[in-house]
Amino acid sequence: MISNIKRTLIGLPLHSNEASHERLSNFQALAILSSDALSSVAYATEEILLVLVVAPLMLDLSWPISIAISVLLFVVSISYYQTIHAYPTGGGAYRVCSENLGTVPSLVAGASLLTDYILTVAVSISAGVAAIVSAFPELLPWRVPMALLAILIVTIINLRGVKESGRVFALPTYFFICMMYLLIIVGLIDWFMVGDIPRPVTHLPETVDELTRLGMFILVLRAFASGCTAMTGVEAISDGVSIFKSPEAHNAGKTLLGMAALLVSMFLGITFLANHLGLVPGGHETIVSQLARIVFGTGVLYYTTQAATALILFLAANTSYSDFPRLAMWMAKDSFLPRQLTNVGDRLVYNNGIVALGVFAAGLVVFYQADTHGLVPLYAVGVFISFTLNQAGMVRRWFKLKTPNWKLSATINGLGAITTGIVLVVIASSKFTHGAWIILLLIPAQVMAFRAIYKHYMELNNQLSLDKDWPPEVTRHTVIIPVAGIHRGIVKAVNYGKMLNGDLYAITVDIVPEQTDALCKRWTEIFPDVRLMVLPSPYRSVVDPLVDFMDEYVKEEGDYVTVLVPEFVPAKWWHHLLHNQMARILRWRMLYARRNWPGRYRIISEVPFYLAR
Amino acid sequence: MISNIKRTLIGLPLHSNEASHERLSNFQALAILSSDALSSVAYATEEILLVLVVAPLMLDLSWPISIAISVLLFVVSISYYQTIHAYPTGGGAYRVCSENLGTVPSLVAGASLLTDYILTVAVSISAGVAAIVSAFPELLPWRVPMALLAILIVTIINLRGVKESGRVFALPTYFFICMMYLLIIVGLIDWFMVGDIPRPVTHLPETVDELTRLGMFILVLRAFASGCTAMTGVEAISDGVSIFKSPEAHNAGKTLLGMAALLVSMFLGITFLANHLGLVPGGHETIVSQLARIVFGTGVLYYTTQAATALILFLAANTSYSDFPRLAMWMAKDSFLPRQLTNVGDRLVYNNGIVALGVFAAGLVVFYQADTHGLVPLYAVGVFISFTLNQAGMVRRWFKLKTPNWKLSATINGLGAITTGIVLVVIASSKFTHGAWIILLLIPAQVMAFRAIYKHYMELNNQLSLDKDWPPEVTRHTVIIPVAGIHRGIVKAVNYGKMLNGDLYAITVDIVPEQTDALCKRWTEIFPDVRLMVLPSPYRSVVDPLVDFMDEYVKEEGDYVTVLVPEFVPAKWWHHLLHNQMARILRWRMLYARRNWPGRYRIISEVPFYLAR
Repeated sequence: MISNIKRTLIGLPLHSNEASHERLSNFQALAILSSDALSSVAYATEEILLVLVVAPLMLDLSWPISIAISVLLFVVSISYYQTIHAYPTGGGAYRVCSENLGTVPSLVAGASLLTDYILTVAVSISAGVAAIVSAFPELLPWRVPMALLAILIVTIINLRGVKESGRVFALPTYFFICMMYLLIIVGLIDWFMVGDIPRPVTHLPETVDELTRLGMFILVLRAFASGCTAMTGVEAISDGVSIFKSPEAHNAGKTLLGMAALLVSMFLGITFLANHLGLVPGGHETIVSQLARIVFGTGVLYYTTQAATALILFLAANTSYSDFPRLAMWMAKDSFLPRQLTNVGDRLVYNNGIVALGVFAAGLVVFYQADTHGLVPLYAVGVFISFTLNQAGMVRRWFKLKTPNWKLSATINGLGAITTGIVLVVIASSKFTHGAWIILLLIPAQVMAFRAIYKHYMELNNQLSLDKDWPPEVTRHTVIIPVAGIHRGIVKAVNYGKMLNGDLYAITVDIVPEQTDALCKRWTEIFPDVRLMVLPSPYRSVVDPLVDFMDEYVKEEGDYVTVLVPEFVPAKWWHHLLHNQMARILRWRMLYARRNWPGRYRIISEVPFYLAR
Repeated sequence: MISNIKRTLIGLPLHSNEASHERLSNFQALAILSSDALSSVAYATEEILLVLVVAPLMLDLSWPISIAISVLLFVVSISYYQTIHAYPTGGGAYRVCSENLGTVPSLVAGASLLTDYILTVAVSISAGVAAIVSAFPELLPWRVPMALLAILIVTIINLRGVKESGRVFALPTYFFICMMYLLIIVGLIDWFMVGDIPRPVTHLPETVDELTRLGMFILVLRAFASGCTAMTGVEAISDGVSIFKSPEAHNAGKTLLGMAALLVSMFLGITFLANHLGLVPGGHETIVSQLARIVFGTGVLYYTTQAATALILFLAANTSYSDFPRLAMWMAKDSFLPRQLTNVGDRLVYNNGIVALGVFAAGLVVFYQADTHGLVPLYAVGVFISFTLNQAGMVRRWFKLKTPNWKLSATINGLGAITTGIVLVVIASSKFTHGAWIILLLIPAQVMAFRAIYKHYMELNNQLSLDKDWPPEVTRHTVIIPVAGIHRGIVKAVNYGKMLNGDLYAITVDIVPEQTDALCKRWTEIFPDVRLMVLPSPYRSVVDPLVDFMDEYVKEEGDYVTVLVPEFVPAKWWHHLLHNQMARILRWRMLYARRNWPGRYRIISEVPFYLAR
């Protein structure tokens, strides 16, 4: 039954030969790799305004803050442009760091990237739901279930295995770009005709008097930090160089710059209009929705804008579903994450990574009640950690390789590293109490976990190595059958046990003396050639006396004891609830009871008895 | 670690000899067996008033309704008085029905009793928490966690095994009785001095004008039905006759009548005062708390009353913890419930039944948000089903046995059966839409489940019977070892496999061809005498090709295949997350894959390799 559900949702398994690699044109690649970056236009302006709204007179500062972020974006883009040319097969921060900066920085980069992929899903889905709720406010109470449903759908789609088919994915991205430009252009024309619409200041909390100059400065820094979420996803193109047509680096570089231009123009356009058309953040309607309502009126164009916004945000979440499992797989291959993450599933995708991402993102959505604003302070920290480490790694690389023009390249990447490093400190300190502390705790915790996992795998290799003493040959073999009653399942076990090459004993634990006596009497009638031993058990435990008994028969290396555990296999799942589970408990306790070394030569053999119905 | 926690909470296991049976004096037995019945004084009056409050002018009808309930109580008590004498070893409704009315009525009685024990816990704990919250209204938001904590504590106490030590348990019951009588006497004196205090009618919804005569009649019936919760627990003494001193039936009968007198006097006293001192139900303060505040003032006596009320209610919940597991054990012995319910735990109690009761009651408390009023409509239905069936069973018994005076006895029990039957119809119909329908669905569903379980056990006995063909002797034995890499764990499995009496093959599934080739090369170097077979697997499944392979080696009865599954046993629990779990999946799939009959001769043998750290 479970298997049928799985088949319906996920599809039939794919043949290993069906793995394929499609190359994409720049036009298609832009759509696929940039949805994360471009979609941040939907919330970045709002995040800046939400910080400034406590002092309404400062709302206009959002314009210079946006310009600063745009400049920063170009610096980072040029830095990544160089990364693309240096790593034409794809150079994420984890790889750049592990090659150039050593293990710990690469683990820090890995931790911050994994965290950010999870946050990308949570933030994008929450923002997408916010776009829908802005258009249909009656859906407000269903925000969290809607977000969880969206995560579930994206997870299932990815478990089915999405061929990164450029044509399908290009649609939502370009649809969004068109709607945003239309919105900005019509908005600018409106503004040109009508002029500034002042904000309805009376409705706002007016606390500017109480703000000191220092307070204002901190507020600006915080707004800047919030706005930096516009930069998330910029690294995606440098991770995905391998999907471009040849010459990969050249095409990817061009696409990166094009993406930066699109992002900056849309971000500045929205921020400009939000300021001059008097929009106020807060409530349950997003800034983009308010803007579209003013510019287009609440008609077809408005709903189209909201649909385009929701669509690109869900698509942005989708990109994390290829990045997270891929990075997790690389880290698992390096023994820093559980090896299961390298398994390729039925549909040729890393399904364990996909499920893990879905579960973590769903947890965040529930915890933050699908509130974008609550998640954003966590978001930018990790992004800037990986930006900084990536650029620093590149600087180190130029110094090592000393290729032609390496000084210029090192200067560019160095500038990128310093800028993003400073921004990282600004974000981490100004947002510390708003949630950034969680990330600053989580990343070292992850690094410690990665190292513990690595240590375990190394220790495992050592213990399993054939260079050490080999396990001894079997010198003495005892076979025991625990018996609680006599039935056909026991007959099967006795038949099987007699054939095994060892001394056979049946064993019963004496819980109810009358029953034990009856059992002994019947046993000698039915199996006169197999000895039944009775173990006392004053505390009614079945397992402890058995384990003690077995340990007695294992005195030296080479002594093996096989326990034959007769087990009913019911025909219906709910019948499992009706059996004593003694076989299960016995098996579990026997396998994991580690009293002393002889325990190492216990073998647990399950003799199934299949029930017909 | 888990084992240590268990020991701390539950205590060390008890020796089987420590089981003992203590006989109690009437004074002690009354306290233990009547806490459920007597504690209903804490909420029964309130439940009547809560129904009538929609038409405030009708509130005074609570007095005649209470008198009707008291009369009913005496009828039922006299009926049970006869049951006690007929079943001096304890005659619950399940036993009386199965002996006199047949299987289906006994299952109906069993289902309604099990349901009621669960409801007793949920209602008593919720009412106990309500008593605490009435005294400390600031605890209101913590109602549900407090109720869950109380259930947890009572469950743990019962898992430790409570010796039903009369002295300890007598305290809260008599403490409660004393406080109630003090409250009633002082209250009556107050009323005698001051006279009636009119209810503050203005604050109440005044809808009496809209009520038709029919509506009023239905309202009275509903109030009566709610008040019948006062009668829950009356059967407890007849279930527990065996704990009385000899002559058991005589002592138990006397105690039953004494209990009825106590219950009726307290119930009538509270209802009288609630009417004449102008109490209005609703809000978050209970009627008893309001009464105590008026009579005693908010001082020491008030808080003592609330403490006594909460205490006896928790004690009432505790009584279900001995009744539920005992009944479940009897029904499990009759094969109507899973056999695990007959297991005696470490502390000589039926721990599975105790845990099941705790889990169900906790579920109800969460679902109804610890609201007594929401649970009450479910409560009385089941009680009256078992009353009616019990009395009907007794009538049948008198007709069968025809003992001296059987006609009088049959008349008394017949009167009881008819009265409780009529009340049952009244309760079920008047409370149908308020939740009684849940019970009326649940009881047939339970009866169907009991019968399905019974059928399964009978079928199991049939399939396991030695009268059928015995499983064949082993004629051909194949041993296979699934191999993914070569390490010391595999060496152990090969050593063990060589010693077994069968043809040995190592098997590997070809997922990554290069790895498979390397494995084959190395295998022939290290184990030249064991053949390694390579199975193709285009869909990357490890299990399917293995199962196919095994089935090939099982052609006729007597062919056995043993699969040796090498399994790492990690030293730390979290290391489990770092292994591929292939052994676990393999074992599971192999045990439960039922493609065809040969599958029945697979044996799954786990060869553990213990990791040192």
